[in-house]
Amino acid sequence: MSSPRVVIVGGGFAGAFTAKYLRKYLRDSAEIELINAENYFVFQPLLPEVAAGTISAPDAVTPLRYMLPGVKFRMAEVTRIDDESHAVHFLQGSRRTPQSIHYDHLVLAIGQKTNLNFAPGLAEHSACMRNLADAHQLRNMIIRRLEHADVTEDVALKQCLLTFVVAGGGFSGVETIGEIAEMIVRTLKFYPNIAADEIRSVLIQRGARLLPELPARLGEYAERMLQKRGIDVRCNRSIVSATASNVYLDDGTSIPSCLLVTTVGNGPAELTRQLGIGLEHGKIKVDRYLRAAGMANVWALGDAALVPMNDDLESPAYAPPTAQFAVREAKRVARNIASTITDRPLTEFSFKPRGSLASIGNYKGVAEVLGIRMSGLIAWMMWRFLYIGMLPGFATRLRVALNWAFDYILPRSIVQIANRNDSATQYRYFAKGDVISSPGQLVDGFYTVISGCLESRIPDQGSDEDFVRMLGPGDHWGERSLTEGSTTFGTLIATEDSRVMILRGHDFRNLREAFPALNAYLNSISDKIYAPDLRNSKDQD
Amino acid sequence: MSSPRVVIVGGGFAGAFTAKYLRKYLRDSAEIELINAENYFVFQPLLPEVAAGTISAPDAVTPLRYMLPGVKFRMAEVTRIDDESHAVHFLQGSRRTPQSIHYDHLVLAIGQKTNLNFAPGLAEHSACMRNLADAHQLRNMIIRRLEHADVTEDVALKQCLLTFVVAGGGFSGVETIGEIAEMIVRTLKFYPNIAADEIRSVLIQRGARLLPELPARLGEYAERMLQKRGIDVRCNRSIVSATASNVYLDDGTSIPSCLLVTTVGNGPAELTRQLGIGLEHGKIKVDRYLRAAGMANVWALGDAALVPMNDDLESPAYAPPTAQFAVREAKRVARNIASTITDRPLTEFSFKPRGSLASIGNYKGVAEVLGIRMSGLIAWMMWRFLYIGMLPGFATRLRVALNWAFDYILPRSIVQIANRNDSATQYRYFAKGDVISSPGQLVDGFYTVISGCLESRIPDQGSDEDFVRMLGPGDHWGERSLTEGSTTFGTLIATEDSRVMILRGHDFRNLREAFPALNAYLNSISDKIYAPDLRNSKDQD
Repeated sequence: MSSPRVVIVGGGFAGAFTAKYLRKYLRDSAEIELINAENYFVFQPLLPEVAAGTISAPDAVTPLRYMLPGVKFRMAEVTRIDDESHAVHFLQGSRRTPQSIHYDHLVLAIGQKTNLNFAPGLAEHSACMRNLADAHQLRNMIIRRLEHADVTEDVALKQCLLTFVVAGGGFSGVETIGEIAEMIVRTLKFYPNIAADEIRSVLIQRGARLLPELPARLGEYAERMLQKRGIDVRCNRSIVSATASNVYLDDGTSIPSCLLVTTVGNGPAELTRQLGIGLEHGKIKVDRYLRAAGMANVWALGDAALVPMNDDLESPAYAPPTAQFAVREAKRVARNIASTITDRPLTEFSFKPRGSLASIGNYKGVAEVLGIRMSGLIAWMMWRFLYIGMLPGFATRLRVALNWAFDYILPRSIVQIANRNDSATQYRYFAKGDVISSPGQLVDGFYTVISGCLESRIPDQGSDEDFVRMLGPGDHWGERSLTEGSTTFGTLIATEDSRVMILRGHDFRNLREAFPALNAYLNSISDKIYAPDLRNSKDQD
Repeated sequence: MSSPRVVIVGGGFAGAFTAKYLRKYLRDSAEIELINAENYFVFQPLLPEVAAGTISAPDAVTPLRYMLPGVKFRMAEVTRIDDESHAVHFLQGSRRTPQSIHYDHLVLAIGQKTNLNFAPGLAEHSACMRNLADAHQLRNMIIRRLEHADVTEDVALKQCLLTFVVAGGGFSGVETIGEIAEMIVRTLKFYPNIAADEIRSVLIQRGARLLPELPARLGEYAERMLQKRGIDVRCNRSIVSATASNVYLDDGTSIPSCLLVTTVGNGPAELTRQLGIGLEHGKIKVDRYLRAAGMANVWALGDAALVPMNDDLESPAYAPPTAQFAVREAKRVARNIASTITDRPLTEFSFKPRGSLASIGNYKGVAEVLGIRMSGLIAWMMWRFLYIGMLPGFATRLRVALNWAFDYILPRSIVQIANRNDSATQYRYFAKGDVISSPGQLVDGFYTVISGCLESRIPDQGSDEDFVRMLGPGDHWGERSLTEGSTTFGTLIATEDSRVMILRGHDFRNLREAFPALNAYLNSISDKIYAPDLRNSKDQD
């Protein structure tokens, strides 16, 4: 009989540590394979530090192959689980060929994905802090805004560029606003036209206080510390919508800001939804042994699973979605799989955490360890040392420790590495009254209205009347300016809250050139859209 | 009278050092402004090390603001120079608003841009080594291929994935192949299914020997060293075309390879072409004082300029496009601008370089310094120390030195950070006979034929005859698979050398959904393209 094959999907805390413990318990008596879309493990709690440039991106991650000797690693994107035939289906390689492998045991450690649909405009205009690319991008976005604010002569735009809003007052939100504020303070000396008092940082928390995971006293301390550093902390407040230049709150006010980071809002990953089993709170139901309900030889843990901590049906308790719990669950899953293979009894998952730590930037932290609460520099140092110890691999530990040491004495880097954008089609959300485009600008893409209504107003030099066109769903603009390379002639205003899709100019031009049907369509409608008396002017977009 | 304003366009060696020297000579008696699209200076000679992961990307660059105290920095994209009114026009901020400023003196240090049009398929399928993003991307591409090769069961594909080709035997090409080979050797222990003898590295050089900038003996030494390490060096050979999986050479042979890096092929930057002055060899003509011909108060230097080294019309000599010369030219331009402002006579540019150095990886280098030739470890150490000394800023020097020290003792990282692609529309070049798609694959985008001819062949289950469709310029495919999310049913083969444009699947679906006219067109032609007897099968792409 060949040795059983355990396949783990997901390379975060839950998946990577399951693989590690399985290897420890089973040695060579099982084949352990881990599948992940990236070839590295992300040390999630360090992402705010990457965004702030305290440590560099490669130091917040470790290659999974390096971390997991003896485990077969496959970089692929899992698309489907076949419970009947015990097969995992995935796409592999740059041509994304569909392939599959058989499993004897399957571990689902697939996390959650960001879901920003709880307020209009968030998905279009908010940055996240979920993975390494997010942290890297946030950093570039901050530097880009500082660069722009330093040279613009538009006072309102400058204020908007220098206002940073973070949504969510949990660990991630508090650390993110703390790190952003510190980074900006330390880089301002390179921006001679920006004064420190022009910077505005706002933290929005839906709940009554910050850090609800920690005792009230520590949450309040964190709040006071952030306020002392000039951060505007607003509890009991939530975001109702957002545009590229405004954050709208539930008290009817708005904050003009060009940078919003959302650290809340989760939903089931694509794969979780495709499992075809009933989810609870968007998570996979597991029993106390961490076996997925309704599937054979499938285990689930981490953020993707709803892990019960008691058998009390009246007042059920579930494991919180933290790294600490994920690692403990991983150990239990590994042990239980080993027990199943060797025909021994399973053990229920239980864990009582020993402590929690949070950094709030500026060498301050808050902590509760073994029942003792701490705050300030001591808590911050504990946080740093603990994290250095938890980092996988000596090389990474050394680098991070040195980078932290450098950070005390050396200036913070403000390098903005190419702001590459993933997608050529992007969505934007405009609030009623927003000016989308004024005369004399370059159109950045081909716009199609998805919902709402926009008004295009072009001055007619022959008369006092403007030429006005209303754009509704399916209508589009920008094609003439893009094709002719000219600047805009009129003004475009949202007359309702509107959502539009934008195909970037470069890609639109390529497509129009290569794809004759599109070109023919655009030529054919050009006469219909534009008023005859304007047809000879250079551009009517 | 207000102080004169000197505007420098470009932040490479030429531009950054001009600003530095101008500040030194003129102090506060002039306003010095530097405009660059990125906010950092790239230490170009270190790019191969970034690609190989010896040093991390932020360490190969320095923020221009940090490097140039007292110089006004503006992150913007210069679009046009107006010689009449002495104005520089640029696009600024994320909305890319057109703006302009006035100059008294203008320095054009705008470099060159890559031009890969010298062989078909190169622009579509070759990586470059020009900027930081290139180096970063090359690194990701190599790791991606190793990850894929480790898990694929297709022997031919594996060989193709493990063959690395570099075009160009100058400094950049030699260092790139040397660094790539070293990186792969050092990371192979993480890839249990790849044997060292499966790796193939090929260096293609059009000229008779490597490193033509150095004495023949050193070029020959470099060649022997590379060959000793298993690198296949081919001189007197050039590339005639390339596809995603093959490099075709001028001797009629081809190398199956999924990764080609081109380090040769330059052309004038967009801005250079728009100047409206006559160019020579694609460069701006300057006099021996470095004044641009045909423009008033405009200076040019670096790779963008054709800098004469003598007055001999019979056998003219020009400055080579190296960093060493750019820095010397920068000093001369700065001095001559200062002289013009203070009404003193100008001085001609002249420079005799003291030496050249190249690293060829694996702790070996070649050098000629003060007329003395060196090779091996000594040359390599000189190269490293010299570069550490030339790096701007103590912080960067320390980090690079430490990273180099780490590199001896610690494993090389194989983290592959999100392979983001700049553009949603991409071009691909296929050689006659190439199979573009086989049954059972996922289509990665919406394809439009630009030139050439492709044959689509779908088995007809009702008869022995296949359903064959020929696709010429303007024809397209992929839309049905993309919309239905299904895999391909037939085979697509290039019957001629062909060029196609691809709009990525994700963006195609967004566009089709948002833009009713495109959807209507695609629905309308669906009946015409597909054979009626196949209309009920799941997918005909």
